[in-house]
Amino acid sequence: MKTFQISTPDQTILESLIFKINDLTKPKGSLGTLEDIATQIGLIQQTLHPELHKPHGIIFAADHGIVDEGVSFSPKEVTRQMISNFLAGGAGINFLARQHNFVLKVVDGGIDYDFPAIDGLISRKVRKGTRNFLYESALTDQEVEQCIEIGAEIVKDCHKEGCNIICFGEMGIGNTSPSSMWMTCLAGIPLLECVGAGSGLDSRGVMHKYTILKRALDNFKEERNAMNVMRYFGGIEMIMAVGGMLQAAELNMIILVDGFIMTNCVLAASKLYPEVINYCVFGHQGDEAGHKLLLDHLKVKPLLNLGLRLGEGSGAICAYPIVESAVRMINEMNTFSNAAVTKYF
Amino acid sequence: MKTFQISTPDQTILESLIFKINDLTKPKGSLGTLEDIATQIGLIQQTLHPELHKPHGIIFAADHGIVDEGVSFSPKEVTRQMISNFLAGGAGINFLARQHNFVLKVVDGGIDYDFPAIDGLISRKVRKGTRNFLYESALTDQEVEQCIEIGAEIVKDCHKEGCNIICFGEMGIGNTSPSSMWMTCLAGIPLLECVGAGSGLDSRGVMHKYTILKRALDNFKEERNAMNVMRYFGGIEMIMAVGGMLQAAELNMIILVDGFIMTNCVLAASKLYPEVINYCVFGHQGDEAGHKLLLDHLKVKPLLNLGLRLGEGSGAICAYPIVESAVRMINEMNTFSNAAVTKYF
Repeated sequence: MKTFQISTPDQTILESLIFKINDLTKPKGSLGTLEDIATQIGLIQQTLHPELHKPHGIIFAADHGIVDEGVSFSPKEVTRQMISNFLAGGAGINFLARQHNFVLKVVDGGIDYDFPAIDGLISRKVRKGTRNFLYESALTDQEVEQCIEIGAEIVKDCHKEGCNIICFGEMGIGNTSPSSMWMTCLAGIPLLECVGAGSGLDSRGVMHKYTILKRALDNFKEERNAMNVMRYFGGIEMIMAVGGMLQAAELNMIILVDGFIMTNCVLAASKLYPEVINYCVFGHQGDEAGHKLLLDHLKVKPLLNLGLRLGEGSGAICAYPIVESAVRMINEMNTFSNAAVTKYF
Repeated sequence: MKTFQISTPDQTILESLIFKINDLTKPKGSLGTLEDIATQIGLIQQTLHPELHKPHGIIFAADHGIVDEGVSFSPKEVTRQMISNFLAGGAGINFLARQHNFVLKVVDGGIDYDFPAIDGLISRKVRKGTRNFLYESALTDQEVEQCIEIGAEIVKDCHKEGCNIICFGEMGIGNTSPSSMWMTCLAGIPLLECVGAGSGLDSRGVMHKYTILKRALDNFKEERNAMNVMRYFGGIEMIMAVGGMLQAAELNMIILVDGFIMTNCVLAASKLYPEVINYCVFGHQGDEAGHKLLLDHLKVKPLLNLGLRLGEGSGAICAYPIVESAVRMINEMNTFSNAAVTKYF
């Protein structure tokens, strides 16, 4: 499998970062999370003057065989329909991308539909949807490898274009199901606590989804490591995001993490390369059941908690201005000595 | 006293607002708080196409006689020193204002210092700091009236410049003390739960502050209504913010509410005119002890919780992009019918 060189940022600069932040004209610690984020980004970029360049949002889209079992409220066709909506600029993620100057890239990683050539769609179809993991492995080892490589390649292109902060989103009707499987297998949290309503199941629907997923989990006899879990349950768009995250960390980029599904991708990525977590800024705690548990498992606290459960990367992009605030804070605020303000601590 | 015409927005348009938001291409409710904010702003502006214009941040600054009792970690001189910092663009609020295109206005409402004429400082000194409320009423009725009128006048000017969304911040060393008094008197929450560390007191300092405030509370024998409480405890900058909020609501402007001190101003304003709350979007839950209790008392949930405790309006301006996202959502997202996406709910 493709390997990545991901290291924990050199901590030598940490003391200078803390000194600089404490010398800004404010009571010590009074900018809370902005101070934490500024420190993290200073470490990632190894500088006291961090900068954000050309933020990119990547939407990986693919279908899921498990949808045949009625685990999703929305029909499969919505995956492909939303592609046109993304490209026309009318989806949730689009207004957020416009607002915060994100370049948006939409990747067909494995939608179960033959598109005519569409301007703006990056076509990297690995296969037309995953196999149904109730009966068989969703993907082959080779397909997993392909997904990782495609995710990495897309990120490399963004980096070449000058991007140093990136978020990943997903479109794939049914993808909270494999996410729940990743979470239970890789975080060791009981399946029942990992299953939620997705795009709108009622409690009966959630119970049916749980029953199906429980049967699939019972069928899964392999060692519960990231590679096996990703291959057996898919999905394509999620594994592409894992590859993208690993590549981003290798390139010292900031990874702005979205909701439930993308946090599961961080979980899988961190099982392969624990150091990846140093590059992650968690954008949003979503409403999908299990997301809070998963964030707690990773010992992270996201910037926002706005009850979003749209996916697409929306929670991550929504949080971008907070990251920008942190960077502006460390670069633009006056220091006590310069400002002739009594340093009152 | 000056009166204001503040009404609850006409609810007739509510049904159309909800219909429009539910027809956007997303699972119903999946944009969480953004949907709530869009609804609220649609009601305030009585339109399905709300807009934000010329956001303004007003910093009211003044000193507090109670600081003589050692209730604040920071020395009084910091109030006046920070004015130059605001005007030079080097304070916390400045980088946030630049980031989100806020016009910042700094008002000397009652700083205990004779400034030379300073470009950019709006001079409206009611008196050089409040009296020490441990021994006497911080202000007179006439001074309270003056503060309300000045706050209202400043907001009227912003409105004339085309502003329809405004936040208020404050600079006044010691002002968490009167805030705690307002909170205990007007929300009926025990004083002990209303007192916190302000800009950096240790636990011993907090206990001293509590002891002083408890003595002042015991001395206060009047009816605990908003006018009496504002007059007896001050401060000037806080009452100006109350006047500003009432004027903003009368003019159907959106009031973006900052942290502990400004939430106490909303509390006082709402005791005078309960309808003012319809115009408030709460930006941030700060770290000052008591703020969460106060927000719960008002039955509101702020947009952010980033551990800020800087004041100046920083938590409010930090939350502005979320409000902008809500407005973009309702204006820019495609509808199911237009987008040819199966409406899956």
